[in-house]
Amino acid sequence: MVFNLQFFQVLSIIISMLAFCTAFWLYRWVEVQPSSNQRIAEISKLIRNGANTFLTKEYRTLSRFCLVAAAVILIFLPAPIWKGNIAANIIMAVSYLFGTVFSAIAGKIGISIATIANVKAAEASTKGIKQSFMSGFRGGAVMGMAVVSSSLLGVTLVLLLTNNTTALLGFSFGASSMALFAKAGGGIFTKTADISADLVGKVELGIPEDDPRNPAVIADNVGDNVGDVAGMGADLFDSNVASMAAALVMAVSLDGACKAAGQTANNAAMVFCYAAVGLLASMVGVMTARMKEGGDPTLALNTNTYVTTGLYGVLTAAATWAFGFSWRIWGASVIGLLVGVIIGLASDYFTDDKRPPVRAVAKACESGPAFTILSGISYGLMSTLPSMVGIGVSALAAYKLCYPMGGGSVEYAMFGISMAAVGMLSIVGMIISNDAYGPIVDNARGLVEMGDLGDKALEITDSLDSAGNTVKAVTKGFAIGAAGLTVIALLGAFMSEVNAAIDELNAVSAGAIMDKIAGFDVINPNVFFGLLIGAAIPALFSAMLMLGVDRNAQRMVSEIHRQFKEIPGLKEGKKGAVPEYDKCIEIATDGAIKELVPAGLMTIIATLLVGVVGGVQSIGGFITGNIVSGLLFALFMSNSGGLWDNTKKYIEAGNHGGKNSPAHKAGVVGDTVGDPFKDTAGPSINTQITVVSLVASLTATIFLTFNLFG
Amino acid sequence: MVFNLQFFQVLSIIISMLAFCTAFWLYRWVEVQPSSNQRIAEISKLIRNGANTFLTKEYRTLSRFCLVAAAVILIFLPAPIWKGNIAANIIMAVSYLFGTVFSAIAGKIGISIATIANVKAAEASTKGIKQSFMSGFRGGAVMGMAVVSSSLLGVTLVLLLTNNTTALLGFSFGASSMALFAKAGGGIFTKTADISADLVGKVELGIPEDDPRNPAVIADNVGDNVGDVAGMGADLFDSNVASMAAALVMAVSLDGACKAAGQTANNAAMVFCYAAVGLLASMVGVMTARMKEGGDPTLALNTNTYVTTGLYGVLTAAATWAFGFSWRIWGASVIGLLVGVIIGLASDYFTDDKRPPVRAVAKACESGPAFTILSGISYGLMSTLPSMVGIGVSALAAYKLCYPMGGGSVEYAMFGISMAAVGMLSIVGMIISNDAYGPIVDNARGLVEMGDLGDKALEITDSLDSAGNTVKAVTKGFAIGAAGLTVIALLGAFMSEVNAAIDELNAVSAGAIMDKIAGFDVINPNVFFGLLIGAAIPALFSAMLMLGVDRNAQRMVSEIHRQFKEIPGLKEGKKGAVPEYDKCIEIATDGAIKELVPAGLMTIIATLLVGVVGGVQSIGGFITGNIVSGLLFALFMSNSGGLWDNTKKYIEAGNHGGKNSPAHKAGVVGDTVGDPFKDTAGPSINTQITVVSLVASLTATIFLTFNLFG
Repeated sequence: MVFNLQFFQVLSIIISMLAFCTAFWLYRWVEVQPSSNQRIAEISKLIRNGANTFLTKEYRTLSRFCLVAAAVILIFLPAPIWKGNIAANIIMAVSYLFGTVFSAIAGKIGISIATIANVKAAEASTKGIKQSFMSGFRGGAVMGMAVVSSSLLGVTLVLLLTNNTTALLGFSFGASSMALFAKAGGGIFTKTADISADLVGKVELGIPEDDPRNPAVIADNVGDNVGDVAGMGADLFDSNVASMAAALVMAVSLDGACKAAGQTANNAAMVFCYAAVGLLASMVGVMTARMKEGGDPTLALNTNTYVTTGLYGVLTAAATWAFGFSWRIWGASVIGLLVGVIIGLASDYFTDDKRPPVRAVAKACESGPAFTILSGISYGLMSTLPSMVGIGVSALAAYKLCYPMGGGSVEYAMFGISMAAVGMLSIVGMIISNDAYGPIVDNARGLVEMGDLGDKALEITDSLDSAGNTVKAVTKGFAIGAAGLTVIALLGAFMSEVNAAIDELNAVSAGAIMDKIAGFDVINPNVFFGLLIGAAIPALFSAMLMLGVDRNAQRMVSEIHRQFKEIPGLKEGKKGAVPEYDKCIEIATDGAIKELVPAGLMTIIATLLVGVVGGVQSIGGFITGNIVSGLLFALFMSNSGGLWDNTKKYIEAGNHGGKNSPAHKAGVVGDTVGDPFKDTAGPSINTQITVVSLVASLTATIFLTFNLFG
Repeated sequence: MVFNLQFFQVLSIIISMLAFCTAFWLYRWVEVQPSSNQRIAEISKLIRNGANTFLTKEYRTLSRFCLVAAAVILIFLPAPIWKGNIAANIIMAVSYLFGTVFSAIAGKIGISIATIANVKAAEASTKGIKQSFMSGFRGGAVMGMAVVSSSLLGVTLVLLLTNNTTALLGFSFGASSMALFAKAGGGIFTKTADISADLVGKVELGIPEDDPRNPAVIADNVGDNVGDVAGMGADLFDSNVASMAAALVMAVSLDGACKAAGQTANNAAMVFCYAAVGLLASMVGVMTARMKEGGDPTLALNTNTYVTTGLYGVLTAAATWAFGFSWRIWGASVIGLLVGVIIGLASDYFTDDKRPPVRAVAKACESGPAFTILSGISYGLMSTLPSMVGIGVSALAAYKLCYPMGGGSVEYAMFGISMAAVGMLSIVGMIISNDAYGPIVDNARGLVEMGDLGDKALEITDSLDSAGNTVKAVTKGFAIGAAGLTVIALLGAFMSEVNAAIDELNAVSAGAIMDKIAGFDVINPNVFFGLLIGAAIPALFSAMLMLGVDRNAQRMVSEIHRQFKEIPGLKEGKKGAVPEYDKCIEIATDGAIKELVPAGLMTIIATLLVGVVGGVQSIGGFITGNIVSGLLFALFMSNSGGLWDNTKKYIEAGNHGGKNSPAHKAGVVGDTVGDPFKDTAGPSINTQITVVSLVASLTATIFLTFNLFG
């Protein structure tokens, strides 16, 4: 048969290349859009330089970390170098570095295009909403295409070259460790700047958002790029790689078993086929995206998502029929996609200003900030239920659907769950495009304000910005749901790795034979011990990040105060009185880099410590507790943050007293609390749970032979 | 042998009776303390009537619920009445009602003494701190002795009369269902009144706390009684019963197995012995508690706790030696007690105003309320780690310590965990005494202010009140830790119940034999499904309670505004202008009763729904997820609430600008958010997880035979 694994790997490479070309074409399209305003050019140069400075410093710090990690991997993984073979360790270390480099490149591309597209969208807004929307969206689409094609290309190349799924986990770990720090660092930067700018600008002095007198205003715009574009890109690159890696680990193992039994096997082929088809669907979605003059940008963005979703369902069905794949697995993948949509809609319900939650919180603002916080936290907590049920039901359904394959097989069932995750992430190209659109038009709005392009342009970019915020809730729901299913699948992958390691140990053991593990039973106190600690980690992790933002913002607020005090005429807006923007950028950069390391390291060290104390059973519990509480906190924080943001905007639109009313002041407090919730801690937890699962899988062998109470 | 089970049951009854006598003696002691002030008598009558009105209304509502529940139990439990024998169902229903009545009586006793002791403590404060302390403490001790003796007496009688451990679970469920509603209802009442009084009084009008012009001031004092005395009493009555019930379910089963094998068995005897000894130690601790004139009340309270702890360790060691109990089980019980102390100390660290967390949050208050909230939430999240590790380590250690008994037995290991919980709760008599002391002296402070007893008396009651707040953190840590260990043990009890039900089904089955379950494996998707939903329940539950407080407080704030507007001269404090206190009490009462039912019912219904969908495996996961996230949220909310409370007080003591500074305003926002965290949602979660475990255990049979995807 010609439609074998290699065929689909080559297909994946071809479609990745096509997506790269699409990205390039979109890049050029954005680049040739007109831009002539001198003032905007100056400001945008400041933003671009700031973003690049941050990225350079961040990558310099992280490259040190990654080299140390690579050296550790070289010595210890997949087996200590003095026990295993050196070649395997070299492959592992190189795969890891490969993962970090791919992730860094994706982030860099995103920053490059975002800092061009913001200018184009700003300038286009003077002519009309259609052109401005296209600049923003196509800028975001460059990022979307670049991230997805590089993740598919990377995964395909690693498997093709090494023919080794553990190397795939190494590649995935490289992507995750970069994402962990990029997301945390970017998140701290962006919220430091955002909060400080708002606090002094809007609250203390009453000057508008994006006012050029504010020394933190450029840092705030830089933050949108490094947090929401580069950080988010690294995050979804990581999720996408992890979901494919988890699915492939299981698919290759199933294929091996099938071949050994003399049957045809196409599970791994199917993973590549579905991933390639998902990318194709996203390409079509991106290229056909249009908006009429005077149209609704939210509708345009959502339409693209639904078109891509539908296309994916149809194309994968066609492929399943044509290539004789399993309809059960197809079903699992479609279940994943549908549940993604449901989770997105639930997030939307709790953050949309036309729905009861935002309305209730806005009303509570009239009683003062304490009620804003209490009601916002309450609705945020409530919002976790539908998504938790959705993830639980989809995992259960995918499992039950695929269990009958291979005559009642847990392996197929777990593979089904991993394919639900692949399904949910299939349209990730579209998701990233929509998501990166947000910070670009947010920046464009800032440029319009600072460049004084007039009220009409401001109104247009405002409406584009607001669409970005609304769509963000849906895309975040997708990202969290997919991470949830992926890590459930990774729990299965962890068990496979442990059992493979047991097999190897038994093969060389002269004495006692170790039993394979059948699962992680919560009645086992080692599992429960891990479970309790694993559940506490996301709480500690998000607390560390938020305190980081807090400390950093306090530093920056002092600097802003200093500038307003020491630079004559700045407060009054006298001509020639220019703030020292770069000082603020420097504080945000240095602070973020200082604060991002401890939280990330804590996560990795905690995993290793629990393994040393309680062995693989404790690690199984640890991963489980980490997933459960991680999902809970990620959903809670993202949704309540989004809710407060929209509550403030709803009040600003003239409700409950409008701008500068007491309700508005309370709303601003809610928004400030929500900022690090939704843009620093919440989305970083995703990555944190993936990192824990991967660290655990990679170090499984060590905990088997070395632990205190396992 | 004369030291058989009956001996220790009789001993338990005797010591319970002794404790009742002690409670009565203390009650009389408090009652004969002098009180002569007419103004205070009037106000205290208002408080007493308000508390009694609430309690009557609450018990009326709950009695309807309990009768319905008893009817359902009569029909369905332990087996549907048409399948099992009627006698068993009657015993079950009666045990259940017995549990609710005992719980209600304990609450009623608490309210009676608390509303006398507050007057005595207030009056005594004009003479000196020593006498005032003794009135407050001995008032609290009445509650402590009453709760513990009635729980020990109830458990002993139920087992003695029915000789049936499932009936014991029924009794425990009765206590839990009362506690769930009493805690939630009392918590909503107290925080409605507290927040509303503060918001209008302190924040809007700038009048002092406990100012008699404030229409909500009496409701606030009533709230201390119904929330912190009656609610807390029901909560700890429930925890204490549940821990004994879980231990006895396993002990009786182990004893049965031993006797069948012809060995001597004294596990159940040991549970009674330890519980009786714990009560004895608390009695000694309570009766020997003293404070010198000019002494430190915090030190006095903590000294009592440590005396009792030491006494318990020594007495149980002596009993273990004298009666030939297992030293391993003794070890497990002492581990529990020690970890309780550690958890208490950790809570203390995060809420003590001499430690870095409170200091850091107080500093953050200078930057405004958003930073108060962000840093408080962060430290609250961090504070969960030591306690989670403590609970995990103690469960692991107790398990490993007891596993070798019976030649490597999971049953003994789980029994060890349950005895760790019994150990942690052994000194609960002392804990309740300390805890009930808090609201009594808080009330006394209010009476001193309203009765105008002078600055010296105010100073004394202030210092007594502040000691109550500090000690509260430690006792809350104990309560949460004990609930954690108890529900882990209940998870074991649930498995035992399921396997017993499987045995029965197999015995009557003509066809297929059902396998016993070995545990709850998270790789099983039914377990994981339950896990995810179980984890979301505490989030939803606390959100519902907090929104209840929010809604209710908004109603009360409007009423206070109305009174200040419509009653001439009230705001200015003219003579003869008296607010309508009872209107506010009525709003708090009706609102609390309306809001307490949905959250409680949701919990029970969710448990049943998950069982129907996924069978016993999903229920096992559900209980597990519920425990893990319940502990996390209970710790987070209790600790951040306590932290904000003490931050505000620290600022009020003259730091960061002192009273009425911007930092103080931010601190008040934090305190208001923290109020329902620490006094409504946080402590109710304890009860919620116990209820879920008990409902699951009791309905195990039903889910075995009737479920959709199990």
